[in-house]
Amino acid sequence: MLDLSHYGEDAVVARLTALLEAGPGTLTGPGDDCAVVEGSGRGEVELLKTDCIICGVHFLPEASPRKIGWKAVARTLSDFAAMGGWPRHLMVTLALPSDCQMRWVEEVYRGMNKCARTFNCSIVGGETSSLPAGAPMMISVAGTGSARRSQVVLRSGGEPGDVLFVTGTLGGSQQGRHLTFMPRLAEAEWLSQNFRVHAMMDLSDGLAMDLPRLASASGCGFRLDEEALPRSRGVVLEQALRDGEDYELLFAMSERSARRLVVEWAEKFPRLKLSRIGGLSSDGAAGLTGGWDHFSE
Amino acid sequence: MLDLSHYGEDAVVARLTALLEAGPGTLTGPGDDCAVVEGSGRGEVELLKTDCIICGVHFLPEASPRKIGWKAVARTLSDFAAMGGWPRHLMVTLALPSDCQMRWVEEVYRGMNKCARTFNCSIVGGETSSLPAGAPMMISVAGTGSARRSQVVLRSGGEPGDVLFVTGTLGGSQQGRHLTFMPRLAEAEWLSQNFRVHAMMDLSDGLAMDLPRLASASGCGFRLDEEALPRSRGVVLEQALRDGEDYELLFAMSERSARRLVVEWAEKFPRLKLSRIGGLSSDGAAGLTGGWDHFSE
Repeated sequence: MLDLSHYGEDAVVARLTALLEAGPGTLTGPGDDCAVVEGSGRGEVELLKTDCIICGVHFLPEASPRKIGWKAVARTLSDFAAMGGWPRHLMVTLALPSDCQMRWVEEVYRGMNKCARTFNCSIVGGETSSLPAGAPMMISVAGTGSARRSQVVLRSGGEPGDVLFVTGTLGGSQQGRHLTFMPRLAEAEWLSQNFRVHAMMDLSDGLAMDLPRLASASGCGFRLDEEALPRSRGVVLEQALRDGEDYELLFAMSERSARRLVVEWAEKFPRLKLSRIGGLSSDGAAGLTGGWDHFSE
Repeated sequence: MLDLSHYGEDAVVARLTALLEAGPGTLTGPGDDCAVVEGSGRGEVELLKTDCIICGVHFLPEASPRKIGWKAVARTLSDFAAMGGWPRHLMVTLALPSDCQMRWVEEVYRGMNKCARTFNCSIVGGETSSLPAGAPMMISVAGTGSARRSQVVLRSGGEPGDVLFVTGTLGGSQQGRHLTFMPRLAEAEWLSQNFRVHAMMDLSDGLAMDLPRLASASGCGFRLDEEALPRSRGVVLEQALRDGEDYELLFAMSERSARRLVVEWAEKFPRLKLSRIGGLSSDGAAGLTGGWDHFSE
């Protein structure tokens, strides 16, 4: 009898999703940032995502409730960005102890609503449930959205020779940015509309864990130019690689697209750093492992 | 500073959803069994729902993991039935302690998948998260589905003089049925296709709590014929009213439709009891309160 810590998060997910049978209309099932299903036609697909944050794991009890609400929604939105799509409707499940303060919960809701409205989507459904005494509160946010069929970006489309980019800076998110980050929706939409992005994901568990996932989904190895990693202020290389919760975009495209991108990005998003950090290769990965694994010991 | 137990579940939900701003395309926001949003046209609307079950609240740790998985999915499906719609795609969030047994989690997934496939829908996305030591495990299931625009049944369409019906029998669900119940999807679909159902919901918190909700949403009072309540075997009236977790349909329609229904139901669903239990009225409700309130003391 083995417990989850024996397997690690990726193996747990792989074993569980192997038990599911895909139904009709499912274009991309579990394993990418969002699921992709048949949409309303006219060249659109529907994107689906659910995510949750838990007190003591994703935020501390003393954090600002408004920021906790922001984060709960922003994490889900970030997964829509990672697909080159846009979220539309959100549903929220709150599991709360009965001794939770009403005013505190209202602040969480204000934070959730603010994040949703900032990105032109709306919370259309809510569910609340009580928790046994002493259990940590949990917020789950599920979302639906859409993308043009021709512009959906999966993790699996990377090719040997592709250039790897990340937006923003990495590491040190625990000092506050993990609660206030901006999902890169506008940037991802512009990217997928104007470039052939081969593969993309959002960085939630740290580049050291997420880059091997993208490379592996694409059937590629990778090389990482550690000197080129964009580090947040006061952060050392190890932190940039392994802290996690950056919620920046990691993506791959051809060398030719990459050259054009570097020029156009600087004009379009002058205030958001874009860094070329390495490339995909046909050989095995450099031995980069680690990061934040939800079930590792 | 007041905590949630001071307000009770309905007031908590009302206060929280008042903080949300409805976006474009939202036809029915929080407050009904599902949210209703603009669909793909051709007379269809999209339905959205999220729900969760928590160890110690909705199931005991020693329950069969396959049944726990069934219940997690069946609860969400039951809300689609309550709207006269059908679910299509499901997303699952599992929050698990690291010392959870892999084989146990796989059984939960098998139960979820079985319920989904039984009702022709599929689980297209999964998310797993770790929990702090000692925290109760939680399964959240979000779903999307659809209904014909002309056949969506809200809680709010009941009229004075309407007849009230419930399917099945009530009470005693904790003895096992709460883990194995069949969402009334086929029955609700047939009802909404063949009758003008004015208002409908699924019974999750007990008739004593849910009937006042339906009546109140419809701006009606109600009378309940307690003699006519269909009680599960070995169950007294109070239990049929207040045990909760029946997941049967409660619905309202005109007297004329009701007479036709009673005849046709017996032919169509000979093995599922249908009971006429009272009616909606223009005066205030009979003083029926109680049932299962998630945040009451």
